[in-house]
Amino acid sequence: MNAPVVRVGVLGCGTVGSSLISLLQRQRATIGSRTGLELEVTRVAVRDASRSRGVDLPAGALTTDAASIVSDPDVDVVVELMGGVEPARTLVLEALAAGKPVVTANKALLAAHGPELFAAASAAGVDLLFEAAVAGGIPFVRPLRESLLGEPVHRVMGIVNGTTNFILTRMTEAGADYAEALAEAQALGFAEADPTADVEGHDAAAKIAIVATIAFGAAVTADDVVVEGISGITAADIAFAARHGFVVKLLAVAELTDGADGPQIGVRVNPVLVPETHPLASVRESFNAVFVQGDAVGDLMFYGRGAGGDPTASAVLGDLVDAVVNLRRGAHATIGGLEPARIRPADEGVAAHYLSLQAADRPGVLAAVAGVFGEHGVSIASMEQEGAGTDGEARIEFVTHRAVERDLRATLTALRDLDAVHSVGSVVQVLTEEEGS
Amino acid sequence: MNAPVVRVGVLGCGTVGSSLISLLQRQRATIGSRTGLELEVTRVAVRDASRSRGVDLPAGALTTDAASIVSDPDVDVVVELMGGVEPARTLVLEALAAGKPVVTANKALLAAHGPELFAAASAAGVDLLFEAAVAGGIPFVRPLRESLLGEPVHRVMGIVNGTTNFILTRMTEAGADYAEALAEAQALGFAEADPTADVEGHDAAAKIAIVATIAFGAAVTADDVVVEGISGITAADIAFAARHGFVVKLLAVAELTDGADGPQIGVRVNPVLVPETHPLASVRESFNAVFVQGDAVGDLMFYGRGAGGDPTASAVLGDLVDAVVNLRRGAHATIGGLEPARIRPADEGVAAHYLSLQAADRPGVLAAVAGVFGEHGVSIASMEQEGAGTDGEARIEFVTHRAVERDLRATLTALRDLDAVHSVGSVVQVLTEEEGS
Repeated sequence: MNAPVVRVGVLGCGTVGSSLISLLQRQRATIGSRTGLELEVTRVAVRDASRSRGVDLPAGALTTDAASIVSDPDVDVVVELMGGVEPARTLVLEALAAGKPVVTANKALLAAHGPELFAAASAAGVDLLFEAAVAGGIPFVRPLRESLLGEPVHRVMGIVNGTTNFILTRMTEAGADYAEALAEAQALGFAEADPTADVEGHDAAAKIAIVATIAFGAAVTADDVVVEGISGITAADIAFAARHGFVVKLLAVAELTDGADGPQIGVRVNPVLVPETHPLASVRESFNAVFVQGDAVGDLMFYGRGAGGDPTASAVLGDLVDAVVNLRRGAHATIGGLEPARIRPADEGVAAHYLSLQAADRPGVLAAVAGVFGEHGVSIASMEQEGAGTDGEARIEFVTHRAVERDLRATLTALRDLDAVHSVGSVVQVLTEEEGS
Repeated sequence: MNAPVVRVGVLGCGTVGSSLISLLQRQRATIGSRTGLELEVTRVAVRDASRSRGVDLPAGALTTDAASIVSDPDVDVVVELMGGVEPARTLVLEALAAGKPVVTANKALLAAHGPELFAAASAAGVDLLFEAAVAGGIPFVRPLRESLLGEPVHRVMGIVNGTTNFILTRMTEAGADYAEALAEAQALGFAEADPTADVEGHDAAAKIAIVATIAFGAAVTADDVVVEGISGITAADIAFAARHGFVVKLLAVAELTDGADGPQIGVRVNPVLVPETHPLASVRESFNAVFVQGDAVGDLMFYGRGAGGDPTASAVLGDLVDAVVNLRRGAHATIGGLEPARIRPADEGVAAHYLSLQAADRPGVLAAVAGVFGEHGVSIASMEQEGAGTDGEARIEFVTHRAVERDLRATLTALRDLDAVHSVGSVVQVLTEEEGS
């Protein structure tokens, strides 16, 4: 094959980088026959050039000097797999300024500096592609950018963190409590020793910021996301959900809603009771999915592996092929014209909730509790009292109709002030038909 | 806006055509700002130019002469929404030969003449795009062509017919029998008065032929597909499935398997018992989904509306935007280098099956029946005998391990020859872990 060679520089060679290099070599013939180009990894930046990578590279390809790859005139396209904000940000900006397309899987970088980077790519007239940054191997960013270009999207709901989905699946299917399920996830390598970024929702928040940016063409960053994790979810919550035909999922949601001064973007990550018949309920174990609601197309869902070396490398390779084809054509895909985002304040969100409280088991308590909901404009959809214990205390579980977050919070404060209420337990959003489809 | 105008000719103005024209007009500004182009529908071919379409078109845009649109030098791109093979095939070929990109939603045309049309598009150097032909609004063809370009795909399993999925969902969830569920689907407009093309699997067969062509780069047509519909599925089959944790789905499957002389493509449409925990099991009502298994990316699923004016128009519009952007760039997407397909003969398929038979309820019958399976090399995974009736007849249900189709057929013939076997009922494939994920 005498196809023109495109020289690829890779920054970072961990699991994804090694998978990418292997995949590129295995698929060389296929890529060549379909694109007329030969992709060759000529330089790879690593932290320790002496360590074996298990991949076949030209002599001298490895370097610890990432900046030298970005500035190398013999590198045509750059793949950034270092993770983290710096030096990744500086290197990506330098590569773009040098006219090199960049493919990245770096969600933290895009969630913090996406608008700056998209503008730099647009100014340089080259691609900045990031399919792997949001949901690993799931080809979802490109459809959202291209197939749905003529389609107003009003809501995207994602299960975009495999660790928390694994934990919630174990709690649901094996009856494990949170600590047990987390320990199992850690033992299996699905959760890190310090699981904070996953279980508290920060990883999902970074991803939904990127999704909101591309779905709504507005500059949304991770700081705009209202975040709540799953560490407060109890076995009793899961049991309540199951009794009522729900499963608990950590959803990352970006939606367009009407604000007082026009459309607002709401972005949040929180646990949600999802009806068992909803497609998102079927996303089990460490799988991810992104559910998109468009005005014309209706409901769409994209499902697959959100992490892992090979799935992520597959997404990176798809982008890389796209970038080099565009480079030869002198074309590029842009995220152009990002507007400043009008972010909905956290207390203006509207949702239904499940909540539980421990209260004195005596006449009149329920009336007092129900009165508090009513006073704050929160309407009760259903109420369930668990068999009273011998300790004179009852567990009462409520599901509210959709209510404004501000009113719900005021209700919770007032409930805690009631003498008869000993404690307020979990407060978990319930996905209703208004949002679900 | 003084963006360059791209003139669109539309062949056929039924539900999808009307939705497309409305959607284009509503999204004019968005498309303009993201592509720098203005798309205007200037000519529309209809059967009856006097009938109102409920859409706003330039005076004189309607014509009954479709060929005049294709040859019109003032039409830049053609959208074919007529359906059927002729005259659609001739018109599409003429448009391509005239250098006009074509967007089509015509599954029958592509399933019968896809390779000819792809070759014509490639020779003319223009786009032939068909996202809407396989699964309506689900953006799935483009990811399969682009995002997974560097990814060997070994199996695609689709629920690509909404009518049959609606009927099977009703049978599963409402306990309806086949005739009741079909009647309900017809009353709701989900099934036609003559439902043959849907319920016997021919619609799904056309779609999976197109999927196989793009997934494996080989010329597969609808004639290559082994087809079985759902009209033989009984309430007893559905009940058996439910008792064992399955739901019955009509799956359209394209897979690469090893044949005696190298890789073969197996393409089939048939009812399958799908485990309730499999993502395809969660696809309810008239929704569609396409499940893709790639070597590196692992399992992917694309879910959404497989039909309907607005969802289909959304997919057509995504293609149309792509086609006009490519046209301005002088670029095009090709399905190049299709090889002749080596199709696996129907009797070489390998699968597990559920089957039921009515047999005499007396000692020795089960041993004789089990012996027949063993003689033909079909291994029994489980057996269940329903409470014997008063008529001396028992219903016996088997699940086999994976076996070659030829051996299964020989087993069925031999079973029917047994005196003790009064009849063989449903024979339904069971999705096993080998195929499922």
